[in-house]
Amino acid sequence: MSDLQQTISQLRQALGDAQVLTGEAISPRHYSDWTRHAPACPAALLLPTSTEQVSLALRICHAAGQSVVPQGGMTGLAGGAVPRTTDIALSLDRLRGIEEIDTAAATVSVRAGTTLEDIQHAVADAGFLFPLDLGARGSCQIGGNIATNAGGNAVIRYGMTRDLVLGLEVVLADGRVLDLMNKMIKNNCGYDLKQCFIGSEGTLGVITRAVLKMAPPPAPATTLLCALPDYPSAVALLRRIQSSVGTPQAYELMWQDFFRLGVSWLEKPVAPMPDHHPLYVLLESSAPGNALEQTLEAAIEAGEVVDAILATSQAQARGLWKIREATAEFPQRMAPLNFDISLPIGRIGEFAKRCRERIDARWPGNRSVYFGHIGDSNLHLTVDCNSLPQPAPVLEIEELVYSAVGELGGAVSAEHGIGLLKREFLHHSVSAQALRVMAELKRSFDPNGILNPGKILG
Amino acid sequence: MSDLQQTISQLRQALGDAQVLTGEAISPRHYSDWTRHAPACPAALLLPTSTEQVSLALRICHAAGQSVVPQGGMTGLAGGAVPRTTDIALSLDRLRGIEEIDTAAATVSVRAGTTLEDIQHAVADAGFLFPLDLGARGSCQIGGNIATNAGGNAVIRYGMTRDLVLGLEVVLADGRVLDLMNKMIKNNCGYDLKQCFIGSEGTLGVITRAVLKMAPPPAPATTLLCALPDYPSAVALLRRIQSSVGTPQAYELMWQDFFRLGVSWLEKPVAPMPDHHPLYVLLESSAPGNALEQTLEAAIEAGEVVDAILATSQAQARGLWKIREATAEFPQRMAPLNFDISLPIGRIGEFAKRCRERIDARWPGNRSVYFGHIGDSNLHLTVDCNSLPQPAPVLEIEELVYSAVGELGGAVSAEHGIGLLKREFLHHSVSAQALRVMAELKRSFDPNGILNPGKILG
Ligand SMILES: Cc1cc2nc3c(=O)[nH]c(=O)nc-3n(C[C@H](O)[C@H](O)[C@H](O)COP(=O)(O)OP(=O)(O)OC[C@H]3O[C@@H](n4cnc5c(N)ncnc54)[C@H](O)[C@@H]3O)c2cc1C
Ligand SMILES: Cc1cc2nc3c(=O)[nH]c(=O)nc-3n(C[C@H](O)[C@H](O)[C@H](O)COP(=O)(O)OP(=O)(O)OC[C@H]3O[C@@H](n4cnc5c(N)ncnc54)[C@H](O)[C@@H]3O)c2cc1C
Repeated sequence: MSDLQQTISQLRQALGDAQVLTGEAISPRHYSDWTRHAPACPAALLLPTSTEQVSLALRICHAAGQSVVPQGGMTGLAGGAVPRTTDIALSLDRLRGIEEIDTAAATVSVRAGTTLEDIQHAVADAGFLFPLDLGARGSCQIGGNIATNAGGNAVIRYGMTRDLVLGLEVVLADGRVLDLMNKMIKNNCGYDLKQCFIGSEGTLGVITRAVLKMAPPPAPATTLLCALPDYPSAVALLRRIQSSVGTPQAYELMWQDFFRLGVSWLEKPVAPMPDHHPLYVLLESSAPGNALEQTLEAAIEAGEVVDAILATSQAQARGLWKIREATAEFPQRMAPLNFDISLPIGRIGEFAKRCRERIDARWPGNRSVYFGHIGDSNLHLTVDCNSLPQPAPVLEIEELVYSAVGELGGAVSAEHGIGLLKREFLHHSVSAQALRVMAELKRSFDPNGILNPGKILG
Repeated sequence: MSDLQQTISQLRQALGDAQVLTGEAISPRHYSDWTRHAPACPAALLLPTSTEQVSLALRICHAAGQSVVPQGGMTGLAGGAVPRTTDIALSLDRLRGIEEIDTAAATVSVRAGTTLEDIQHAVADAGFLFPLDLGARGSCQIGGNIATNAGGNAVIRYGMTRDLVLGLEVVLADGRVLDLMNKMIKNNCGYDLKQCFIGSEGTLGVITRAVLKMAPPPAPATTLLCALPDYPSAVALLRRIQSSVGTPQAYELMWQDFFRLGVSWLEKPVAPMPDHHPLYVLLESSAPGNALEQTLEAAIEAGEVVDAILATSQAQARGLWKIREATAEFPQRMAPLNFDISLPIGRIGEFAKRCRERIDARWPGNRSVYFGHIGDSNLHLTVDCNSLPQPAPVLEIEELVYSAVGELGGAVSAEHGIGLLKREFLHHSVSAQALRVMAELKRSFDPNGILNPGKILG
């Protein structure tokens, strides 16, 4: 029996046959994440039903030097949960459920395999809001959200996943269970170890439980579409709104290219305002209507806003959002090469210009669109590979974009993480020294290198 | 020449004589922190003027196995910056100054030795708010604030220091300079190493620079004093305010004992409302006056509030705050033994009751007062040692309080850190496993154990 076979048989003994699948018993859903990158059937799939089982499994794999790939909802966009045929996948699918909602502490305690949507619903039923929200809500798991430090739709108001985590339970590579469950906002009792695991993409420990912050229920919001003369106006308008009526719920910037594309895909492709402006922002604010209108008037006077529509009905608001939601149709309507990057907020306009010029010079006639959550320093850029020579020069474009990001002090991953897909570009944003210290941290937590080897670090 | 003398002479050569003081040249300010715990003149005091000098100094000490105690403004309340006679103190006093304010990114970049107050002023001049605020603002340094993950007055709205830090520059124990400067809200490029140093009290690295978030300028606030029938009402009122008009700027709960003490120390010791209620809350909100009044009326109807005063002038507001600010007079008017602890918000009332009963049973007639920022899960408890048998049984009281904290799942340090003074009580809040992992993290970052040995961990 090979070492691998022996490890699998030990795992069967420890967890029970029903928790250890191999071969065809493993659903192809576990072969790759949302990217469909390098799908492979892992040597085994573990489906532990308790923290103790996760601990047992890791103890065995640690002793055997057997690599383990933690898997959540498999919606990741960086290849972080993709196994190789020699890896054992460890899925959190059966570690599911809300354990407690504490309305006094405003916390919710959950098992790692619970889907984001289940948490959102349970928290809403308790009269609060769980503000983390992203398109994959129905499938992604809170463990995966924490392991990737997911961003999503509400970062401008509520922060990243990191900002919503109060406590964790983590199983270390050698099987030790680390109880960092905590309900307090203030807790300065030594090193805040949980921070190490948030955003570590399954390479430092397996998250099994979490305590999360609940927010007060959101106030109803007003939707507003504004046309802007230039990028600095987008920043000025954001700061003006923040200091007069508070941080908006959403602040979605669309460059002209994106706006026109979004309009052209509407059922009735008629722009709600002239489409010759360089930039458009779709914003939501829960400030009282009259205060918001006053702010808007001042912005128009200052020349930051050149045209504006305030939605007067839910239907109108939904209509405006439809333009921004063109992104959902990218996979159907083009061959999208998506970038999730961040830059210091003041440099996003400059970056978009520089990047566009370089791409246009190299591939005239390409179709690229720019849009972003600029309040979070986040820019998205999508290049339609159908508009490029075939086979599309993906690596070349990536190198062009990521090196431009590096030049302006930006990050090659804003929210999706590094996984496998951005590993080679990490050096544009992270110094060699910092990469070395990351490797040291990895060795400290996982001396045998069994947890998700090859992800993030080479 | 002893090893220590040799190291000092190497340091003189590397940094220059003016940066290496010994003996009487060292001001007693560097002997201990605000607690005046175990003052000692360090073997030498280093006053580096640049990151490079910090790096050189640590390289030398690392090679020599020489212990180094980082020192900021010396306002710490946990003994974290206190040296022994065999330690070399490394002060950030000369690494001072704002490097850049980026109004588009809403960030301020500073050197670690800059005082909090200098940062607050510079940020205010730029039209923003730096929301970290604490009594020691004029002396404490941002490096110390970050190293202790300081809390302070604005946590309920803006979070702890950790929530305000976007980037750091850190010199590691062996002298390597780690550049983690970053201006982006979203940056998922591998492990977020800066988190390791925030709150590590000088034991994992020396912070030399930081990028901090600026907030929009604050709106004018209304001050309100309410009397409450019981602790659950204090939580219900907080949640009611949060969901109707947003999180208040301040939510200071005072138990009857504290309220009466505060009133009795007023120039005119007349209570603004009857003093027989079990609890009082002083709150500040920037919500529009009418919205706040509506919320208050609903709270009165629900029985959460039994009496209330809404300050109608600045002077009246200041008068109400005077009661809460009795704490500033503790050192003059009593022999205070202060506790800075946290508990799940729903259990603070139960804790205060249990703790009071135990202290009263053991030391009848003692004077103890309870107050706290309950929105942050933070409770303060001060026992007047003058009201106890002499010499005051400090250790016994500490053990009583901290074990009660442990019983209810609380933290023995909410915001001041562990340093030297809470080390022996850490086990009430942190599991043995977590303590072991903290020690492993320490070894990974500082294999020779030269950085602030004996602080936090034994
Ligand atoms: C339609 C769509 C929209 C999206 N929108 C956003 C968005 O707005 N913002 C955003 O940030 N992301 C977004 N994503 C990406 C993705 O949803 C997030 O990265 C999500 O957090 C991944 O969760 P998951 O459970 O699917 O993780 P997986 O894909 O299963 O795994 C992701 C990584 O986490 C690790 N991991 C998973 N669970 C655990 C655990 N319990 N312990 C330790 N490690 C674990 C894996 O090893 C892997 O490295 C989107 C994806 C899709 C498909
Ligand atoms: C009147 C008063 C009110 C206070 N109010 C509050 C409050 O409301 N909330 C609160 O949290 N605290 C409060 N404190 C405590 C104290 O002010 C904070 O802990 C503050 O953050 C300490 O900053 P410092 O520069 O004085 O640090 P120091 O006391 O010099 O050092 C504190 C710790 O940080 C380390 N350190 C300092 N600088 C660095 C650096 N650059 N790199 C690495 N390590 C470093 C030291 O080694 C030590 O362990 C108060 C103190 C006083 C005197």
